[in-house]
Amino acid sequence: MRELYPTVMVDVALFSIEENALRVLLVQRSQKPQAHRWALPGGILRPEVDASLEDAARRVLRSKVSVDIPHLEEVCTFSGPGRDPRGWSISVLFFALLPRDKVNAVIRDKVEQVAWVDPSEHGHKLAFDHDAMLAAALGELRRKVERRALPLHLMPEHFTLTDLQRTCEAILGHPLDKGVFRRQVRDLPVLVPIDKTVGGAHRPAQLYRACEGFEFESLR
Amino acid sequence: MRELYPTVMVDVALFSIEENALRVLLVQRSQKPQAHRWALPGGILRPEVDASLEDAARRVLRSKVSVDIPHLEEVCTFSGPGRDPRGWSISVLFFALLPRDKVNAVIRDKVEQVAWVDPSEHGHKLAFDHDAMLAAALGELRRKVERRALPLHLMPEHFTLTDLQRTCEAILGHPLDKGVFRRQVRDLPVLVPIDKTVGGAHRPAQLYRACEGFEFESLR
Repeated sequence: MRELYPTVMVDVALFSIEENALRVLLVQRSQKPQAHRWALPGGILRPEVDASLEDAARRVLRSKVSVDIPHLEEVCTFSGPGRDPRGWSISVLFFALLPRDKVNAVIRDKVEQVAWVDPSEHGHKLAFDHDAMLAAALGELRRKVERRALPLHLMPEHFTLTDLQRTCEAILGHPLDKGVFRRQVRDLPVLVPIDKTVGGAHRPAQLYRACEGFEFESLR
Repeated sequence: MRELYPTVMVDVALFSIEENALRVLLVQRSQKPQAHRWALPGGILRPEVDASLEDAARRVLRSKVSVDIPHLEEVCTFSGPGRDPRGWSISVLFFALLPRDKVNAVIRDKVEQVAWVDPSEHGHKLAFDHDAMLAAALGELRRKVERRALPLHLMPEHFTLTDLQRTCEAILGHPLDKGVFRRQVRDLPVLVPIDKTVGGAHRPAQLYRACEGFEFESLR
């Protein structure tokens, strides 16, 4: 019977920014298989409560973090008879973005231990095929920013252009030219200047917010 | 029991070129549900024979067409309790590319009727959510060509730069500037000139082949 119905799971690479560095959320598994190994947060689809795979991913995230996830996006599937000892399985991988001012709001006192780690660091030795999943999710996030999608879902409500540049740099893993970056983003309608600045009277920095309903797509 | 194990399917948008126009393969369903409706070729995952979802997609295609499919790529998933009357289901959508000189090699005398249609035409009224699937697959194919991936898997063994330009134009749905196109592709190492031309002695056209192991990724 089991062979006729593969197990369907969702796994999520939840990215955020901590002190200008890109971080991904890992959880330590409390149950078999692969108990005590670190993994991306994930879970088995529950058709009786989930309206879709994306819904399942949001439910799984709600059980790990205490805040709403503004952006969730499918990356790809992982499948086969050998990836999970419980039998033929499919996992649909999503990546999600958590605003950088919410990174500390994540509940850490659940049964499972959680940690924010550098996603580009090698040697995490995650459970199952989660190293390949993390690489795929990070690759997709980077490709989008390389193609000039603005990661506004990682930003707090108000931010400066320097804050935004730092976030793009954290994702890409290399510095960007300040002048070029500003020319590319400054006049985008998705960035709305607010009536407020930060910093000294000498060189105040304009604050921005993201326009309503912005999408994580190529803009520039 | 059914509610605990969602049905897992694969569906494939198989694209090819017919007389310089982009075409997608549709099949007429012979069985319920939605018998006689046209749909993308697809089928239910068979864990006892399929080594992965991609494997399942290749098996489904083998049952519809008589040639090897050189390129198969995952697009995204469709899921939920309402998309198929048989219950909660997931379909993983792939797109595949068939060389333009093989478009006539497709077996047409199967139980199911097959047809090559214009994928950008509206009003196909396909079975299930296959209209949305077709739109997603076509969008992904176009995005890749817009981002300068060369659709070499649609080309015959030998082709001219004009043939390649016509294929890109068929995918994008608009003409490209010949001079710009040639400058962009001419010196790409993925295009290997062969010792052969076509056309009259007056203006012979150089023939090319794709280099071994080329991928459908952004090159230019």
